[in-house]
Order: sequence, then structure tokens, then C-alpha cells
Amino acid sequence: MAKGNVSLSVIRRLPRYHRFLRELAEGGVVRISSGDLSKRMGLTASQIRQDLNCFGGFGQQGYGYNVKALYEEISKILGLGISRKTILIGAGNLGRAVTQHMDFSARGFELIGMFDVNPELIGEKIGGVEIYDSSYIAEFCEKHHPTIAILCIPKEAAKELAKVLVSHGIKGFWNFSHYDLAIDYDDIAVENVHLGDSLSILCYRVHELENSDEGAPAEK
Amino acid sequence: MAKGNVSLSVIRRLPRYHRFLRELAEGGVVRISSGDLSKRMGLTASQIRQDLNCFGGFGQQGYGYNVKALYEEISKILGLGISRKTILIGAGNLGRAVTQHMDFSARGFELIGMFDVNPELIGEKIGGVEIYDSSYIAEFCEKHHPTIAILCIPKEAAKELAKVLVSHGIKGFWNFSHYDLAIDYDDIAVENVHLGDSLSILCYRVHELENSDEGAPAEK
Repeated sequence: MAKGNVSLSVIRRLPRYHRFLRELAEGGVVRISSGDLSKRMGLTASQIRQDLNCFGGFGQQGYGYNVKALYEEISKILGLGISRKTILIGAGNLGRAVTQHMDFSARGFELIGMFDVNPELIGEKIGGVEIYDSSYIAEFCEKHHPTIAILCIPKEAAKELAKVLVSHGIKGFWNFSHYDLAIDYDDIAVENVHLGDSLSILCYRVHELENSDEGAPAEK
Repeated sequence: MAKGNVSLSVIRRLPRYHRFLRELAEGGVVRISSGDLSKRMGLTASQIRQDLNCFGGFGQQGYGYNVKALYEEISKILGLGISRKTILIGAGNLGRAVTQHMDFSARGFELIGMFDVNPELIGEKIGGVEIYDSSYIAEFCEKHHPTIAILCIPKEAAKELAKVLVSHGIKGFWNFSHYDLAIDYDDIAVENVHLGDSLSILCYRVHELENSDEGAPAEK
């Protein structure tokens, strides 16, 4: 629908709408008002109306939203369900946890190979996906044409490796390394996951609560 | 400094400033201009000046920022370095990866116990921290007074368990379960980590790139 008007902050909220709508649909809910949705999601009804109006035509005054239609439209906007060959670099603790924890295929990511520099891991399979030697990455890319790479490697290795991967056809990075990849590339999709930053934000929130407990009014 | 004026979106960027400033300090850099910092961070110099002006007094026209002073001020604002007793619930793949991957103590989180319902895991130690039976959580909290809980458990378990934890003194949650905890609690600090949402955003970004490749102009 009217995609050109959708800001990044609305896009960032779409996966949440998507999750809630899926649950509603699974629970047999056919229509939902922005008021009900707002109670479930902890957003204001007006925020929800504003966000969803970006995609046009789903809410009807007094009738609420068609859950299934809205769910499918958001799936389409997010580009979910298109199959994309994906590789994961760094089969250490984090890489393995990500592999075992995530339902990649539900989002259209088909994990076809994992890579590590640790010789003890080579040949092992996780969830049916084999771990190869990292020196084989370029050849593997030429042969199998993955377009997405998940980076679970240290910061020091990420910058150089990203260059190699981009030159071999990788278009999107899910980046758990502490290196901000997006800085180097304009025409590549990067989603950085900084768990450390997230933990720092929790720290800030707790600190703020503690200070407001001590009598100082909570500041916005 | 002038904390009352700092918006959530600036706060969200603080951990990144913090990371970059630490690296600069470690590299022996004493002062840096907003222009240089902007090149490294991929933000505009004016954005950086605006963000950092919220804390007052660090930039001097023509002299740049004092790296160490700014780093320390941001540490203080984030509440880093205050020691907080922390427990982790769910010692499966994700919980173990988080434990082994994160430098908790650098941010003032002291991991004092892990909990799981799987009897095979009870008694095991990860990074020196013991895994206890989940039925022991309440008693453990009464004895050791942790204030932070990391939830690496399924959505279904998160809601009920959060209630128990809050009633036993937990003030902050780092929540990897797919349940949006913040909705239930006003006076508790919650940082939700939705890896699935992040992967959906990557999906959107790649999809957007593909569409712009096909000739349609990229829309904002």
C-alpha cells in the first residue's frame, strides 16, 4: 500500500504488530479495534491508528481491523516469506544459540552453511546444517550463492570478512559482532544487534528508577 | 548534567557513543571534533553536537570533545559501574550463550545464580556460576537479594515468573522471552530483546533494497 510514507520508526514497530496479529489470528480473533489492540500492545489507540493508516484501508470506523488481512499485509511489507539463502559465520556459543533459538525458515531465511576457524568444530552439524572451515567461505558463496550472512564473530574479524562477503554477493547482514557495519556500506542491508548496548540501556533504566525512588521526580 | 532534557532516542544512542569513546580513549586519543566523531560513527556532526549538548559543557568550539571526560560522564548517566546482583532464568542455548558472551561485570551486573527446570542441568557451573532448580528461585531471592533478572525462557513461562520475581524484589528485567513484559509493569525497568523482530527488520531492509534494484526509486 502507501509504502512511500512509512517512516523507519513505524517500520521498527511492524514486527511487533505482526507478532500480536499472528497470536490474535491463531486465537481465532477476526476483527479487533484499535482500543483493544492498544491494551494488548501497551501503545495508545491513536498511535496504532496512525501507524496502521500508513498502509491504508484496514481499519473501518467502528468495525476495527481485519486481523488476517492486516497480518498478511504487514508480512508483505516486511518481505517475509521470500526464501533467502543464508550463512552464519562464527559457530561459537552465540552462533550456536542463534541457530538453535531462531525459527529462520518462518521468516524466509534458509540457513545453508555455518563457518568457523576452530578446527574442532569443522564437520559438526547443528540443526542439520554443517560447519565448514572459514577458509572455504568464498568458494561456498560462488557455488551456492547465499545472499544473507549472520556474523557472530569478534569485532576485529568483522570488517575484513564483510568486505569478502560483499564481494561474493552477500546483500544483507545480521550482525552480532560489535562492529557497526552499516558505516561502510550504503547499498547493503545491515541489522546490527548490540547486546551490550541493550544491557547498558537496562542499566540506565534501573538507575533512573532508583533515582526516582530516592525522592527526585522521574524525569522524561 | 542537564539530564531532564534528554529524550529516550538520545539515551538509546548513548551506549554507542560510550563504545566509540572507550575505543578512542584506549587508542590514546585525548580530544576529538564532532566532525571526526561523525565520520567514525556514521552520524552527522550536527546530530552529535545536538546529542552531546544535552549533557552540557563537553564540546568547546574549535577544540572538540575531551574524550575521557565525555566517556566518564556518559558512564555516569547510564548508571554503569554500580554493582547489581543478577540472576539468569533459563540455562538453555540462549541463556548459556548470553552468559558466556557478555561481559556483565564491566557494566556492573554481578551474575550470582542461574536457574532451569531441566534436572540434567542442575548443579552445572557456567563461568563459575551455578545452575539451580527453578523451584528454588523465591528462596534464593530472599537469601541473596538480586535486583536484576535475565529471562531466557519461553513466552508462556515469562508472564507468571515475572510476577514471582517482582514480588521477590527484582527491579529490572533483561527479557529475551517473546513476551512484552513492560506492558504489565510501570515501576519496573524492562529491556526487551526481540531477536525475531530484529531478523524481520533485516528482512524488510533486504526486501527494500531488492525492490529499489528493480528500478523503483528507493523510498524513505
